[in-house]
Amino acid sequence: MDRSLNFIFRRRSIRKYLETPVEPEKLDLLLQAGMAAPSAMNTKPWEFVVVTDTDRLAALRKATPYSGYQVPVVIAVCGNLGLTHNPTRRLFWVQDCSAATENILLAASELGLASVWIGIHPISLFKDAVRNALQLPASVIPLCLIYTGYPAVEKESRSQYDPTRIHWDTFGNQPHLEDKA
Amino acid sequence: MDRSLNFIFRRRSIRKYLETPVEPEKLDLLLQAGMAAPSAMNTKPWEFVVVTDTDRLAALRKATPYSGYQVPVVIAVCGNLGLTHNPTRRLFWVQDCSAATENILLAASELGLASVWIGIHPISLFKDAVRNALQLPASVIPLCLIYTGYPAVEKESRSQYDPTRIHWDTFGNQPHLEDKA
Repeated sequence: MDRSLNFIFRRRSIRKYLETPVEPEKLDLLLQAGMAAPSAMNTKPWEFVVVTDTDRLAALRKATPYSGYQVPVVIAVCGNLGLTHNPTRRLFWVQDCSAATENILLAASELGLASVWIGIHPISLFKDAVRNALQLPASVIPLCLIYTGYPAVEKESRSQYDPTRIHWDTFGNQPHLEDKA
Repeated sequence: MDRSLNFIFRRRSIRKYLETPVEPEKLDLLLQAGMAAPSAMNTKPWEFVVVTDTDRLAALRKATPYSGYQVPVVIAVCGNLGLTHNPTRRLFWVQDCSAATENILLAASELGLASVWIGIHPISLFKDAVRNALQLPASVIPLCLIYTGYPAVEKESRSQYDPTRIHWDTFGNQPHLEDKA
């Protein structure tokens, strides 16, 4: 793995956190990073709900079978379909909000925090639970929950590199694999 | 803007490129960065088609009204629905492949390259054109095209920070805005 890209390779999904709260300045930086993402036709369809209230964190833990972790902060990344009436722009909100999410995860690593991405959309049961917990209006759709805080465990950098997923010019053209066969 | 996060803020969408080819080592690093992305249940649903062939690049330029730029390399990021038969895992391929795409864009910046994300899915006309150009099987869906190369123009870092998109615990709770009102 190339060291210059370690800011990407060291991001790992962490599910055990210290109780230490996250400094407001760091939360603000995470949100700056999120909003720096690209978006289709620069629509910026995102809204961010930052959750530190004990009762609402408890509700989010119960919102899905995958979100039951103790954590000091959750950022719910949502798409706001009310921000544009252009039907083409609305088609890309999942991709735009996913790019914002990945930026936040990478920024968290850089700031000494850890994180895990918990998928919500498109599962209706999960969406309803998050909508109720955070009082989202109908036009605001929760894409995912980012759990973040200071990590209680460490994981090593990794690339998950798999050369069988690389094709040249056309799908299935993989001369780099044949060379080694 | 915080300088430690400049690896995020300096990524800008660039649409003018030099003819200089991209070194194979750098292309490989971009793909490593993409595959380091998180994915739901670690499904890693992605496939990457790296396009440098002149005729296929020409076909991609015509595939959408937003892809007509001259560029030495395109990486088509695709979701392969044939990799898993678990219906839950299949629901998240757009998010997973979007995270991989954002990793590639940020890695490109770090390596002195520029990039632009061109959305393909879910627009059928765009998908068909890319599928034909790159001979994608039916189970492989093109999410987007990443145009990359050495930039012929520069843009400044930016955060697009908008405090009206930040909510605390519940949607619409924005004490940070009222303080300043």
